[in-house]
Amino acid sequence: MIRAAILRLLAEVGYGALTMDAVASEAGVGKATIYRRWRTKQDLVVDTIGDLAAVGAVPADTGSLEGDLRSLMHGYVSVITGPTGAAIRSLLSTIPHHPALAEAFRTGPVSVWRDGVDEVWARAERRGEVPAGVGHRLIAESVSALLVQRWLITGRPVDDDVADEVLETVVLPVIRNAVATSR
Amino acid sequence: MIRAAILRLLAEVGYGALTMDAVASEAGVGKATIYRRWRTKQDLVVDTIGDLAAVGAVPADTGSLEGDLRSLMHGYVSVITGPTGAAIRSLLSTIPHHPALAEAFRTGPVSVWRDGVDEVWARAERRGEVPAGVGHRLIAESVSALLVQRWLITGRPVDDDVADEVLETVVLPVIRNAVATSR
Repeated sequence: MIRAAILRLLAEVGYGALTMDAVASEAGVGKATIYRRWRTKQDLVVDTIGDLAAVGAVPADTGSLEGDLRSLMHGYVSVITGPTGAAIRSLLSTIPHHPALAEAFRTGPVSVWRDGVDEVWARAERRGEVPAGVGHRLIAESVSALLVQRWLITGRPVDDDVADEVLETVVLPVIRNAVATSR
Repeated sequence: MIRAAILRLLAEVGYGALTMDAVASEAGVGKATIYRRWRTKQDLVVDTIGDLAAVGAVPADTGSLEGDLRSLMHGYVSVITGPTGAAIRSLLSTIPHHPALAEAFRTGPVSVWRDGVDEVWARAERRGEVPAGVGHRLIAESVSALLVQRWLITGRPVDDDVADEVLETVVLPVIRNAVATSR
């Protein structure tokens, strides 16, 4: 599990102090295995960030918008509080200084996250739960924003109960208002 | 302006690579001046984080909840897109590994941010704009969360227009729903 070893190391020492040798040692493989796959540390981390996109790529179809959103948000909780969240956090300060990492982050996890909410929204339109043409860009952002802020800034708890409360108190009222306003 | 020099250096090189000598040189003062004030790099950064709390400490009283929130949010935009935002971002990956920095962040900027929203909310209660006892914890979080997520995760624009749109599309509907539900 080379990928798991990279995530652990990133979370522990960050991008700056990460070395190919440490990855080999943490993963319990020879250095040659690592260097065969990646030429540089940057290649290795760019690849790893791209892989993070696979997490929660296809949100469950629960049969309702509310159920789909709940499932999506519980997925965010699990990513944020797991090894992927720790690795992303350890990269956030580095990303502005490394265009290749920034690009991998944008085309990987950020884009998959956006596609996931778009898919949930498209399903709701097909089911007739929301009329076509209701703008959902900021709604999509509100689905994850409060969890992200707790994770990165305030350090308040991030768990399924909080996700449910955010859904009930913020996301659903925002959707109801957008639907009412569009009529 | 030693503080401005520290913020610039943090944004450029991060906590790990910051040195007392570089701070002296960037600020254009002698090393003795720096060491007289702070014994270690950690002391220096803890102090600087504490100072960040002063930014936007007292939100303007505009006479209405909507006006106060708008003013608060424009303040967040200015902090996020300025040198303070860059310095905070450069510290985020470091904070989990340094309890003293985490504590300074929690008791400084995070606590001032919370007090600011609480003050705006208390004024709205005194004006009779919201009934007393409407829970506002998640509402308070929603005031900044979408801006924070753009800043740290998606890289989408953070400006006054976006802040106004978030206020209109997310924050005010959430407040109206909370008020209606409390009746």
